[in-house]
Amino acid sequence: MANPTLKGHKLLVLNPFPTPASSFDPLKETFPDLAIQHVAVDFHEGDAHAKVSDEEWSNVTILMTGSALPKIEKAPKLQVVQLQSAGSNHVHEKPLYKETDVTFCTANGVHGPQIAEWVIATFLAHQHHIPAYLETQKQARWARQAEMPDDAVGKRIGILGYGAIGRQTARVAQAMGMDVHAYTLHPKDTPEARRDATYVPEGLGDPEGLLPRKWFSGTTKEDLHAFLGSDLDLLVIAVPLTPVTRHLIGEEEFAILGKKRTFVSNIARGPVIKTDDLVEALNSGTIRGAALDVTDPEPLTDGHPLWSAKNVIITPHISGMSSKLAERVLGVLRQNLTNLSQGADLVNRVNRKEGY
Amino acid sequence: MANPTLKGHKLLVLNPFPTPASSFDPLKETFPDLAIQHVAVDFHEGDAHAKVSDEEWSNVTILMTGSALPKIEKAPKLQVVQLQSAGSNHVHEKPLYKETDVTFCTANGVHGPQIAEWVIATFLAHQHHIPAYLETQKQARWARQAEMPDDAVGKRIGILGYGAIGRQTARVAQAMGMDVHAYTLHPKDTPEARRDATYVPEGLGDPEGLLPRKWFSGTTKEDLHAFLGSDLDLLVIAVPLTPVTRHLIGEEEFAILGKKRTFVSNIARGPVIKTDDLVEALNSGTIRGAALDVTDPEPLTDGHPLWSAKNVIITPHISGMSSKLAERVLGVLRQNLTNLSQGADLVNRVNRKEGY
Repeated sequence: MANPTLKGHKLLVLNPFPTPASSFDPLKETFPDLAIQHVAVDFHEGDAHAKVSDEEWSNVTILMTGSALPKIEKAPKLQVVQLQSAGSNHVHEKPLYKETDVTFCTANGVHGPQIAEWVIATFLAHQHHIPAYLETQKQARWARQAEMPDDAVGKRIGILGYGAIGRQTARVAQAMGMDVHAYTLHPKDTPEARRDATYVPEGLGDPEGLLPRKWFSGTTKEDLHAFLGSDLDLLVIAVPLTPVTRHLIGEEEFAILGKKRTFVSNIARGPVIKTDDLVEALNSGTIRGAALDVTDPEPLTDGHPLWSAKNVIITPHISGMSSKLAERVLGVLRQNLTNLSQGADLVNRVNRKEGY
Repeated sequence: MANPTLKGHKLLVLNPFPTPASSFDPLKETFPDLAIQHVAVDFHEGDAHAKVSDEEWSNVTILMTGSALPKIEKAPKLQVVQLQSAGSNHVHEKPLYKETDVTFCTANGVHGPQIAEWVIATFLAHQHHIPAYLETQKQARWARQAEMPDDAVGKRIGILGYGAIGRQTARVAQAMGMDVHAYTLHPKDTPEARRDATYVPEGLGDPEGLLPRKWFSGTTKEDLHAFLGSDLDLLVIAVPLTPVTRHLIGEEEFAILGKKRTFVSNIARGPVIKTDDLVEALNSGTIRGAALDVTDPEPLTDGHPLWSAKNVIITPHISGMSSKLAERVLGVLRQNLTNLSQGADLVNRVNRKEGY
């Protein structure tokens, strides 16, 4: 049911990011009948309840929050909770989630661009010998590396987990002339199945799933190995950590990747890879190199052999950080208010059965 | 006049790159009547004449070469010289160039992809603090940088000189969500003028000139300053070094760039920038940083203050190198043989009046 001005709605924003009140002006213009209350809260939002009166809670229909949630009695008109995080696990035990049918939406997709940039930055840095040149620069020496750089034209990227991050990585990789292979748990045999249901900043990602030249899927080892063996120059690991994906990549998989000496980029979670096998694959030259924003253990301990393995770039789980994060979370909210005003499905809606 | 099989033509390739004879099989298939002679020569091609007999020279209609050129009497049927370099200055004094109307074509465009990658790699490395993280990795320390990374979404790239390199850089930048401004010497007011006449690997670059949202042009300081003042986050310098472009960017221009603290990437020639002014702009923080593959002086001397200026990445004029170079030069040849067989204009044809 369309409601273009969002008449009768009240949006309450509990915001732990420093956001100027003027950030909400575009929303006010687009939805003139939407009441907006914006409350700055501390990072853990412990002060959220003290800062909003019962009277104020009573009219809230849409709540944007990190983790602070009211009891439903306090906000009886509440219809939609827009979370500011990519996941929703942290609210699964809250009564509002467990005991009501209030719609929950995540901010999934807000990390896509910056993590895709991190993947491209570290891969290109490796291919163009940037770490070695930073060293010679420090020595104030004009000295060329003996080995010729490999550029990305005609090279193949394989993306394990084709979500918001994988899709934006594919977009940039394709612009560089790379061929894209994608792997998903469930088969993507139809245009509908290939579509991305998560939030995508305008003009980015691969909302229709048009970029992969070849799709792989399945749950068996054979399925995974068919993908890993498809002559990948770069493997990007972008799957959530689940019992199925834990230790997914080990000695056997590195042996398969060894055929092309695939470069491995992990921006998912450390335990998707068996660390000891990774160290071995790097030091033996089985794989060309790796870029790791996540490790197992994490934080990586002092003196761990992974720190000094050959051809590895390690950063301390920072690839999702961005000065644009708050703005992008507002983009998700804007998208969902628009969808709500048009009576359309909301993006990033949490499926309570699947839990994400 | 169409000649699909290139009947009556003989191609002589004087090749200083290690190229297997099988590299020419696709050409033989496409042009079954084309005679092909492939001669490996040393890098300076001094042995080219000794390795090809007079008899062999006499039938050559198409010559691919680096710099070795016959007298026209030796190759009276010669119609086209395909150079393996991006420029043609090194043959301008040769009789075959000065005294005949044999068509000369360059390999302009073969450096586009790898140099664009270098620009993106160094810019993203700076934005995502990769040099600092490589340092903490070396110390085996899990430590986050205090400053939040800035991602590229919504940022603006300004490309000074919109040729093969600039166009491929624009393609990748746009895929990352950047807004593109382009500056060219001559105005690009029509679709024809915006078209790229140089060789482009398939699917890359911006052959129709569709990516820039805004075009700037002109020869005056005001024209240049209007471009530099158009709120650029990243300035890519990709102009040839001429009397007009020498010392184009100095104190005054850095002051304009200071408004946005523009990051400056130079893959053109060192003397386009006044080095002392660059060091000052970096160390004072007027600009956010710089990536330099070229310097003035070059090689950059030991102990030069540019080596240790703030937020600078310097590499020793290597951005054009690629293991794919020989293959890509063959791509230009293939394109021109195709055009020749179709009676179409050749790409990268040197205009003897303009000298490029």
